[in-house]
Amino acid sequence: MKQTQQYLKAQNSIVPLFEPESLAVVGSFKEGRPGAYRVIKNLLAFGFPGKVYPVNPLYDTVFDRKVYPSIREVPQSIDLVVVITSAQVVPEIIGHCVEKKVKAAIIVSDGFAERDEQGARLQQEVVSIARSSGLRLLGPNTIGVVNPYVGLITSQYGVLYEKIHTGSIALCAQTGLIGPSTMPFEDMHYGISKICDFGNKCDIDEIDLLEYLGNDPKTKVIAMHLEDIRDGRSFLRKVKEVVSKKPVLILKPGRTEESRKALASHTGSLAGEDRIYDSAFKQAGVIRVSTYKELFDLAKIFAYQPLPAGNRVAIITMTGGGGVMGVDVAVESGLVPAELSPETIERLAEISPWLASNPVDLGPAAVVVDNFFSHYEEIVETVLKDRNVDCAAIVFSGVPRVLDYQIFARLKTKISKPVAFWIYGPKLSLAEEFARNLENHGFPAYPECEPAIKALGAAFQYSSIKSRFSQAEEKP
Amino acid sequence: MKQTQQYLKAQNSIVPLFEPESLAVVGSFKEGRPGAYRVIKNLLAFGFPGKVYPVNPLYDTVFDRKVYPSIREVPQSIDLVVVITSAQVVPEIIGHCVEKKVKAAIIVSDGFAERDEQGARLQQEVVSIARSSGLRLLGPNTIGVVNPYVGLITSQYGVLYEKIHTGSIALCAQTGLIGPSTMPFEDMHYGISKICDFGNKCDIDEIDLLEYLGNDPKTKVIAMHLEDIRDGRSFLRKVKEVVSKKPVLILKPGRTEESRKALASHTGSLAGEDRIYDSAFKQAGVIRVSTYKELFDLAKIFAYQPLPAGNRVAIITMTGGGGVMGVDVAVESGLVPAELSPETIERLAEISPWLASNPVDLGPAAVVVDNFFSHYEEIVETVLKDRNVDCAAIVFSGVPRVLDYQIFARLKTKISKPVAFWIYGPKLSLAEEFARNLENHGFPAYPECEPAIKALGAAFQYSSIKSRFSQAEEKP
Repeated sequence: MKQTQQYLKAQNSIVPLFEPESLAVVGSFKEGRPGAYRVIKNLLAFGFPGKVYPVNPLYDTVFDRKVYPSIREVPQSIDLVVVITSAQVVPEIIGHCVEKKVKAAIIVSDGFAERDEQGARLQQEVVSIARSSGLRLLGPNTIGVVNPYVGLITSQYGVLYEKIHTGSIALCAQTGLIGPSTMPFEDMHYGISKICDFGNKCDIDEIDLLEYLGNDPKTKVIAMHLEDIRDGRSFLRKVKEVVSKKPVLILKPGRTEESRKALASHTGSLAGEDRIYDSAFKQAGVIRVSTYKELFDLAKIFAYQPLPAGNRVAIITMTGGGGVMGVDVAVESGLVPAELSPETIERLAEISPWLASNPVDLGPAAVVVDNFFSHYEEIVETVLKDRNVDCAAIVFSGVPRVLDYQIFARLKTKISKPVAFWIYGPKLSLAEEFARNLENHGFPAYPECEPAIKALGAAFQYSSIKSRFSQAEEKP
Repeated sequence: MKQTQQYLKAQNSIVPLFEPESLAVVGSFKEGRPGAYRVIKNLLAFGFPGKVYPVNPLYDTVFDRKVYPSIREVPQSIDLVVVITSAQVVPEIIGHCVEKKVKAAIIVSDGFAERDEQGARLQQEVVSIARSSGLRLLGPNTIGVVNPYVGLITSQYGVLYEKIHTGSIALCAQTGLIGPSTMPFEDMHYGISKICDFGNKCDIDEIDLLEYLGNDPKTKVIAMHLEDIRDGRSFLRKVKEVVSKKPVLILKPGRTEESRKALASHTGSLAGEDRIYDSAFKQAGVIRVSTYKELFDLAKIFAYQPLPAGNRVAIITMTGGGGVMGVDVAVESGLVPAELSPETIERLAEISPWLASNPVDLGPAAVVVDNFFSHYEEIVETVLKDRNVDCAAIVFSGVPRVLDYQIFARLKTKISKPVAFWIYGPKLSLAEEFARNLENHGFPAYPECEPAIKALGAAFQYSSIKSRFSQAEEKP
């Protein structure tokens, strides 16, 4: 459904959305059903340290807590309200939030602009009520937010894991796909700083998130899925400002006319021509990704690794075939194969002449050199310390080996150039274990060649954007 | 290293390479080391029903079998010999094979053309000896072959699983990456008809494999990784002939000048300009893939599903955002979103008005319709039976649900249009279990959107190629 009225933006901070000291949940506390009951249960399981107030006139207690009949009856102040009721009563509840001087509300309820004209009018009514006081609104039709640093999770569904790891990747999406009940966050095992599902974006939008996450010390990289961008000019100004501080990755569907049609019926947004977005993103220094998976794959390298000084990549591989595939992806990702320095060539040739070129193919040397893997650490270190090498992709088989993970722990302390791993092997579980260990040591690991090399390409791309922006600043 | 001499092709059948009735293994039988010992051990574990003769003058017995001092001493005839010795003695052993009238030999040994000029000369010598009798050679420097239908596996390494599933996908590669000790075949859990690692390709090459696999009734789809193509003209003639019978997927690295340089040092092949390959592949009806992963991802749909009659795709999704992403990939893969027929629209709207367009987004309907998933089978069947729908992508969350796998078992019997699944979810293990069940019911399942939709695109691409070829044949 189309937005029927001009959108006017509130200016209050969205800090209470992610860092509330007190929180009320309005909805049904029926056990075992998705809804307010689950939100409270998740908050308790997650260890949210703030005050939590259940609100519903039909209940007395839930989880041994008093249930208040209305937000207005809660004696203390409330930073954030999570609303999971039928759409019809949302205006009244938001009215109560305004009276109570609540700072932000997450409207999880659906049945608004995403449904029909009547819902769109209801949504507009809710926005008008909130606007009168500066109350900020997320949603409607949203999973809400996650802030693992304070145990904040507003999902009305059960989550199958205990804890999302804390970390430095912020994820925002205009789809419930981002939710903790749909994404395998535990298996992904990298750390999250914040998660936000925009839902219908009646108020809080990508600009607010950029503003907040740009200043969030826990966030090193921002990964966004955006089906539409509400105010292109403000967005570009804001994103450029944020990009000068940290990388912004964006997946913007609607690359084809057909998907823009599907988008219009999904979100009510009239997405513009794709090439306009594309050139705007380029200008603003956004790293545009083309698949949902890539959004997460590329975010990892920024979370774990330093930026490269240049685009010269070394590939250290167990398989010649893998090295060749890697060079193709490297060049297509804006990298060039590094020309190893004479000193490196000489040192590697001492171990085995088969090592003395890039890609450094360990396969042939491994079969002719005795106890070859005792040289592994030295090979990797020699290559990475080469002045002609800016970054490296390491291809390795995830099977029980002579390799000690301490090699990578030491490497992390000795090397300040980005490294990404392609870990393959005959057993997924072993490869995943190897990958998890590498990531615990701060190295991003991927089960395929392409994302590993593309991640290095993205790191170089951002490194170039950053220096372009800082040069532009230096000019009078 | 460059090939130093003009290659002359033997013409004998390579059937004994994959279907030997008797087999000798020449090499070291030292326990616990990679080598001939492991080959015998793997063959026994795999249940190879043919005769197996260990050969080595230094041993008496291995696995309670007599070890023959030389191939010439084996009293019975031998179809296939696997050679895992130092390169220096390979010419002598191949000489014995010729005397013994062996039909094919797999030279696993390395140290030939992939190493240096001396190795290249040695390789040429071996080829000359074999050529005199028509003995066919695979390798050198190869993992060899796998034929799971007869328990044939020639890997000199331990394999971590009991059995590669039998099936209809043939895999050939010019890299050891294809080997059963490096690929997670058990986890991939789809069926394999044959595996072949070309190694140095001194004799048996892609044309032989196309000839053999084209006529192999167990093989429905051929997936090849080729670093070079030796005889372009013959290759194109042969591949065109095979493509008229079954799909051929090819990954050809060397898309960039830099990777062609790496290729030259890896295989000694001087790969031509990429655009020449690209246009030749197009002309011959080859489906060219761009990543190693895609080679396997796309092969699955041909193994499991019928070809579509057209390119109109329906997307049945749990998430509107996923549907929109799917449309982008669909259009980029040569598909168009299907316009559902009025009858389908009407039927779906009876269940819920939110269902009545493509992508069919179940999300909004699921929250307003009671016991919604009881309608799931009917929705999928209605959409797939629509005359305006040629194929479908189904997006589903892999969590315990009301869905019964029998729905998909029934669907398989009722529908003869290709369907691919994108299975996501909050736990990788659950999503993988769901995917495995779907694949056991004959539906390819992927953990991401793109490969699922691209697979449908490839199925349509091959369907068009096939009808183009048969129209060309019909012309006078």
